[in-house]
Amino acid sequence: MENNKAIIIDAMGGDYAPLNVLEGVELALQEKPNLNLSLIGKAEDLKSIIEKNNLILKKDLIIDAKDVVAMNDSPANVIKEKPESSIVKGLELVAQKKFGAFVSAGNTGAVMSAATLILGRIKGISRPTIGTLLPCEKGYTTVFDVGANVDSKPQYLYEYALMGSIYVKEILGINNPKVGLLSIGEEREKGNQLSKAAYEVLENSQLNFIGNVEGRDIPAGAADVVVCDGFVGNIVLKFAEGTLGLLKAKIKEFSTKGLSSKILALFTKITLKKALKDFDYQNYGGAPLLGVNGVVIIGHGRSSALAIKNMIFRAQEMLEKNINQKIQQHLEGI
Amino acid sequence: MENNKAIIIDAMGGDYAPLNVLEGVELALQEKPNLNLSLIGKAEDLKSIIEKNNLILKKDLIIDAKDVVAMNDSPANVIKEKPESSIVKGLELVAQKKFGAFVSAGNTGAVMSAATLILGRIKGISRPTIGTLLPCEKGYTTVFDVGANVDSKPQYLYEYALMGSIYVKEILGINNPKVGLLSIGEEREKGNQLSKAAYEVLENSQLNFIGNVEGRDIPAGAADVVVCDGFVGNIVLKFAEGTLGLLKAKIKEFSTKGLSSKILALFTKITLKKALKDFDYQNYGGAPLLGVNGVVIIGHGRSSALAIKNMIFRAQEMLEKNINQKIQQHLEGI
Repeated sequence: MENNKAIIIDAMGGDYAPLNVLEGVELALQEKPNLNLSLIGKAEDLKSIIEKNNLILKKDLIIDAKDVVAMNDSPANVIKEKPESSIVKGLELVAQKKFGAFVSAGNTGAVMSAATLILGRIKGISRPTIGTLLPCEKGYTTVFDVGANVDSKPQYLYEYALMGSIYVKEILGINNPKVGLLSIGEEREKGNQLSKAAYEVLENSQLNFIGNVEGRDIPAGAADVVVCDGFVGNIVLKFAEGTLGLLKAKIKEFSTKGLSSKILALFTKITLKKALKDFDYQNYGGAPLLGVNGVVIIGHGRSSALAIKNMIFRAQEMLEKNINQKIQQHLEGI
Repeated sequence: MENNKAIIIDAMGGDYAPLNVLEGVELALQEKPNLNLSLIGKAEDLKSIIEKNNLILKKDLIIDAKDVVAMNDSPANVIKEKPESSIVKGLELVAQKKFGAFVSAGNTGAVMSAATLILGRIKGISRPTIGTLLPCEKGYTTVFDVGANVDSKPQYLYEYALMGSIYVKEILGINNPKVGLLSIGEEREKGNQLSKAAYEVLENSQLNFIGNVEGRDIPAGAADVVVCDGFVGNIVLKFAEGTLGLLKAKIKEFSTKGLSSKILALFTKITLKKALKDFDYQNYGGAPLLGVNGVVIIGHGRSSALAIKNMIFRAQEMLEKNINQKIQQHLEGI
């Protein structure tokens, strides 16, 4: 039966799976009981975990998948080597239109590669892209691509910008989102071969292209959609992540320098927790893989139950707002 | 007269020039009166600023240069269009061996390009590189290149690693510094065309190559020298800068939310000022341009007097430790 609003969740994906995934699904259903959710993974294991942890999750939501993709499995070989895995089987169910969306905190490369092959690309899209929210002074900005593609061609950057613009408009409610091309200077002649060529493509597009933006413009929020090759975007994303870790480590180190430092550090933690609440990836709803025929949400390997819940809600939102259809329509209109 | 320990400072470079530069030179001479320093810039203007501000700086330290390179002048045309500028004339004095080092907080691109042309490359170096310190959990890590070259070839990354390793050994005192190749996964097959090719070159070198490092490994301090193309390094560097700005903005925003927030924010500022003192670029001593025949230190456009002072000290240290000769010897030894 075709069910385009149903969401299937990879129960085996992520460092804390499956418990955090089961709890995340339970949280989602408590808040929105009408959601049509299923879990895919090792059914026997999942059922016993539900029992052991006294979860109220109904066991008939579980679809069995005998195999699991490990975090270090090579993405390119997953379909061939692990056809019975939760990732491959889950995506196949989306391809068969039994579900509209797939949500996973598992091996990012494997989900991207399997999703592209199993679901296929939206007509007119050369390379699907994965994007992320990053906090900025005014709220959030987004960066596309953060790791789906390296050695991008100029046309790909245009496609990331197009898909990112539609995503940002629908999900963040920003009309005519500003698109910035990540480079090393504001002037159009600054940059590398790729960015200079992409500048020309973007400039001649219908998008709200504001020109080059620099690294500092991401946290400043100069653009709503920042486009770059996935090599650069992935490094920036992980650098941002590591910088938060460094901040915590430095405050911890400071707190060991006597009682007054300890107290100051405590106040600081309280302040930062509130002041930097936008930095909490758990609320981001995961990262969408855009450009494939189906909604795919990829989460951080360390996703908590809360993060899983928000990924499910984001998938639902993308289904309700028909993001993929809008991308398709946009491409056909050009 | 040849004077290889003398340092010439661009008095006109940077957003706050020339006053901050004059003050920085004064600070340096107060701390180390034996330094052999000269300033280059518009002599008349500089002399009147010295008088107006009651600086004790001797006016005979000033060498006249009639022109100034603006921050938005095109680096490629500076030698031709502004031969009388402080940057071009200052570097010419280094080329003539009248000075050993040139220090500037001016137009980075102009200094890099003029230095490469006027001083020439160290034999065996294809592309000079600019590197920077970045704070990490254990102190500092360095990143080469942060903007001297885009579309680098694999061999260039090896050269950045070689020069960076010598710099880090001499300046940070780290023996056999660990070299990491910035990429998007730890495994050697992860990355883009450039990083994969550079992996092979680095692996077969005499350097202490530890393999790929990811964006998060920079703040974690996994490597002492992180090498990457200048497009990527520049974006990471400016992103780091912008992230500090974002942190400040978020704390400021929080402080407006009532009295208790205001107090918490105040404690937080005190804590962060102490806990994050390693983040203060003013203490970094600028960024060295390595691979040219002469010591060149480039500072942030917003360099304060303190930053200028530390750039001068760094130039002196590089001269005393014969960094360039060591790079040269290393290349000849291979």
